[in-house]
Amino acid sequence: MIVAMIPIVSIVGMSNSGKTTLVEKLVAELTRRGFRVATIKHNRHGFEIDHEGKDSWRHKQAGAVATVLASPGRIALIEDAAKDYDLIEIRDLYIRNVDIILAEGYKKNPHPKIEVFRAELMRERLCGPGENLIALAGDRPVSSEALWFDWNDAAGLSDLIVERFLSKKG
Amino acid sequence: MIVAMIPIVSIVGMSNSGKTTLVEKLVAELTRRGFRVATIKHNRHGFEIDHEGKDSWRHKQAGAVATVLASPGRIALIEDAAKDYDLIEIRDLYIRNVDIILAEGYKKNPHPKIEVFRAELMRERLCGPGENLIALAGDRPVSSEALWFDWNDAAGLSDLIVERFLSKKG
Repeated sequence: MIVAMIPIVSIVGMSNSGKTTLVEKLVAELTRRGFRVATIKHNRHGFEIDHEGKDSWRHKQAGAVATVLASPGRIALIEDAAKDYDLIEIRDLYIRNVDIILAEGYKKNPHPKIEVFRAELMRERLCGPGENLIALAGDRPVSSEALWFDWNDAAGLSDLIVERFLSKKG
Repeated sequence: MIVAMIPIVSIVGMSNSGKTTLVEKLVAELTRRGFRVATIKHNRHGFEIDHEGKDSWRHKQAGAVATVLASPGRIALIEDAAKDYDLIEIRDLYIRNVDIILAEGYKKNPHPKIEVFRAELMRERLCGPGENLIALAGDRPVSSEALWFDWNDAAGLSDLIVERFLSKKG
């Protein structure tokens, strides 16, 4: 299946390091270049998505294991999950027809990673050697086995992503 | 595919007739009987699902064509839709591992229907002959080619649904 070939790049980093901001910049830059981007956001403590009192919320509260909200331009699916799916499972179950997936919130995973690292916070790095780190993005250069980028350099990071994972399309 | 066999029953009716309330009751009753129920809610004017400022909202705003929110017990997918999918397309693209689908908000569709009809509102019926109406649910009995149920009679309506669509499992 073509679906199984969608590359996954994971944006990792300590809490409040700026992961979501970097994901936003990369999504915008890759989209501007014509790629279709999906994102996966993991939250081990659950998430808020539905509004109390809305019809979909009422369906789900009544016991529906899955609820789809459909409209002419947008679809949403909310469903129970039997487990905490890994990125491959989520890709294969939920994502199709995109060029690349950017994942946020999975600290440990085998996929290529960009670590957001703010040197000013004086904390430890998250990724050690052998964890498939392809780049560090941060506020000031640090020595590393991986390439370093300023975290505002969405163009440079996107060049790297395109070269590594999207070059046949780029 | 097994997925293609999930039966769809549509709950129809004029606006504010009480469709969502009936869906809630049927979901609860069928779930109590051990069935796995999915719901599809259609809104041709779009829907609110995400919260401004939340990470998933930021991903989507940045241009992601699809965003998955994952947690150990629950998954949500929000994605762009190329068109206004019909119920069969939604079933085949988004729903699996359930026994039955209850749909709300699709006035015209070829699937078996339960019409919610409040006689006290003095309005027209929605479903005419030949529209696959299996039951009317309302505030007082009306003559009809279909079976009539009090709209609080979730047990009776569920008996009908089970008999017609879930009898091999019921």
